[in-house]
Amino acid sequence: MIRVGTGVDVHAYDPEAPLWLAGLEWPGEPGLSGHSDGDAVCHAIVDALLAAAGLGDIGGLVGIDEAGTAGAASTGFVTQALARLAEHGWRPVNVSAQIVGNRPRFSARRDEAQKLLTALVGAPVSLSATTTDRLGFTGRGEGVAVIATALIEAA
Amino acid sequence: MIRVGTGVDVHAYDPEAPLWLAGLEWPGEPGLSGHSDGDAVCHAIVDALLAAAGLGDIGGLVGIDEAGTAGAASTGFVTQALARLAEHGWRPVNVSAQIVGNRPRFSARRDEAQKLLTALVGAPVSLSATTTDRLGFTGRGEGVAVIATALIEAA
Amino acid sequence: MIRVGTGVDVHAYDPEAPLWLAGLEWPGEPGLSGHSDGDAVCHAIVDALLAAAGLGDIGGLVGIDEAGTAGAASTGFVTQALARLAEHGWRPVNVSAQIVGNRPRFSARRDEAQKLLTALVGAPVSLSATTTDRLGFTGRGEGVAVIATALIEAA
Repeated sequence: MIRVGTGVDVHAYDPEAPLWLAGLEWPGEPGLSGHSDGDAVCHAIVDALLAAAGLGDIGGLVGIDEAGTAGAASTGFVTQALARLAEHGWRPVNVSAQIVGNRPRFSARRDEAQKLLTALVGAPVSLSATTTDRLGFTGRGEGVAVIATALIEAA
Repeated sequence: MIRVGTGVDVHAYDPEAPLWLAGLEWPGEPGLSGHSDGDAVCHAIVDALLAAAGLGDIGGLVGIDEAGTAGAASTGFVTQALARLAEHGWRPVNVSAQIVGNRPRFSARRDEAQKLLTALVGAPVSLSATTTDRLGFTGRGEGVAVIATALIEAA
Repeated sequence: MIRVGTGVDVHAYDPEAPLWLAGLEWPGEPGLSGHSDGDAVCHAIVDALLAAAGLGDIGGLVGIDEAGTAGAASTGFVTQALARLAEHGWRPVNVSAQIVGNRPRFSARRDEAQKLLTALVGAPVSLSATTTDRLGFTGRGEGVAVIATALIEAA
């Protein structure tokens, strides 16, 4: 028993906010807007995992607009999603997430981020990054998009 | 024998048209342009299923610009795609589709849509929705994008 | 042992360049900018394969900005990615890639491209194409986006 799920998340830059992305803080980089810490990698991973299991999306998992999640670390949402999957008899096989945007320059810290998220998920998480050749909102430096795909199996 | 396929579909809003999305009619919501009913969720699912099986895309399956499909219900295209897969010895394992756009507010009818499409596909279909933080054409309310991923297996 | 990976690639049109896409040259069509031949289909496939195996992305595989890859055929990058996978004990199950853009009109040469890339990858590669209803940078004819998903297994 194996299932696939896909999740996309987009956040605008907020230069006043600290940047949290892929579970890491990025000092000196423009942050991402959002009610929580704005970590679009974690959000896309949550959506991909929940979608694979047919368990809705991040909006139904956590009160994404509620007071209790203001500024919350999005790594906690990944943990909540995995708990929901486990309750329904699913565990992750692997997750692939790609960051689309100009900032931050991801490659220097990819290994660090992959290790952190692989440990968090308990299965391989691969992270990559690309730009859009100055096209679209990502190319104009307005924000970041992340696309994630997850494979899960019956636990 | 298992295969994965991905499909993306984008339609502009057409306020004069009724909205059909994920197999449901959405009274009072701006519709989507298109030769058929414009149901971008069904179109992305068709492309993901056909891609997984290496059977082309929706343009080759149905005469997407022909008179016979004017205003056609796109749920019928999903049925046609599944028949094509069955002819080639494939059946769906599961499908994940995410709607990216401002309208409609999808969560209130997600369960209804998931049940309808799961019954239609004969395998779990999970649906989710997100917005793009006011960025890009989806954020400006110009249209809707849907990304779908399908897993299939030898029947 | 099976794994999934996703890759996205975007290139702007460069009318002065020859078009290479999906391993084919397209005479008379506007080309894609890029340090190599700009073949966004090959680049997205490379990223999807590497992501599935947790082996980074195209930027780490080939010196994408180095002199040695100026004008390089991107089919060679696919071969390099497969060699990297093989070194780590992985082989492709199948790959699905969708071109999002106005040009070229892909359907006329899809079979040719699918055969070429299927032979190159040594596993089924399915190719599809769609437009974005005149929305966004692809709809305005500024460039092409490609999204690819790959399934791999232990060799």
